[in-house]
Amino acid sequence: MSGIDGVLVVPLKVIGDDRGSIMHVLRSDAPHFQQFGEAYFSTILPNMMKGWKLHKQSTSNMTVPMGKVRFVLHDIREKSLTRWQFQEVILGPGDLYQLLVIPVGVAYAWKNEDDSVATILNCATVPWSAEEVVAIPLEAYPYHWE
Amino acid sequence: MSGIDGVLVVPLKVIGDDRGSIMHVLRSDAPHFQQFGEAYFSTILPNMMKGWKLHKQSTSNMTVPMGKVRFVLHDIREKSLTRWQFQEVILGPGDLYQLLVIPVGVAYAWKNEDDSVATILNCATVPWSAEEVVAIPLEAYPYHWE
Repeated sequence: MSGIDGVLVVPLKVIGDDRGSIMHVLRSDAPHFQQFGEAYFSTILPNMMKGWKLHKQSTSNMTVPMGKVRFVLHDIREKSLTRWQFQEVILGPGDLYQLLVIPVGVAYAWKNEDDSVATILNCATVPWSAEEVVAIPLEAYPYHWE
Repeated sequence: MSGIDGVLVVPLKVIGDDRGSIMHVLRSDAPHFQQFGEAYFSTILPNMMKGWKLHKQSTSNMTVPMGKVRFVLHDIREKSLTRWQFQEVILGPGDLYQLLVIPVGVAYAWKNEDDSVATILNCATVPWSAEEVVAIPLEAYPYHWE
């Protein structure tokens, strides 16, 4: 499974000491930074799935500071070189700690792959609005989750 | 203990369903939004303290999606109406879920008040740099933590 055009998986620094750690997310001077629209958390309970979601204007910048989440991306963009490709990325703390950049027009769904609540942070380029996001039933695309 | 001039504690929405929740953090169209410089997590282990920190250019926008953290703010700004005041704010999920806005020049320290790791998100107005932040020893200001 190769990568979808425009999707980025960026390694992030974690700097620890005996009191805790600093976990990088996104800087305005990073090459992949576009603009800031809204930051929000979303939590997902064990074994639950959410999606598909499709953003018409907003690029998503996802990190997972707690838990383990499998994101499945599906390229449904008409003119994309990688149209109809799927891509899987697993995010979490530790070795899985990285930034997932999902471009406009790439649908995504996600599943909690652990037995604890997972927390996702999205630093989206456009503030959430009902007009900007499309909810698509999980059954809409033929992905085999297990 | 009244409030320090310019410090804001903003209630945040949490929208839950049977799969998890959405927890608001910050939108670019919020009245208290200034600009985006960097988002980063910081974790703190049980019973640990960190601080004081002083930012020379950056306003901090703090939320705590996990754990329970007591922030103590100390106004050391020369021309502030509330100079030398302390202010305590406790952040966490649930009833404690809110945004804490700490202006430039207000020193702050924080303590994990729970028996689990706590995670803090800061959406700072300026990207972190060694020139911008000052570390001040905990003993520098006379605050009685217990």
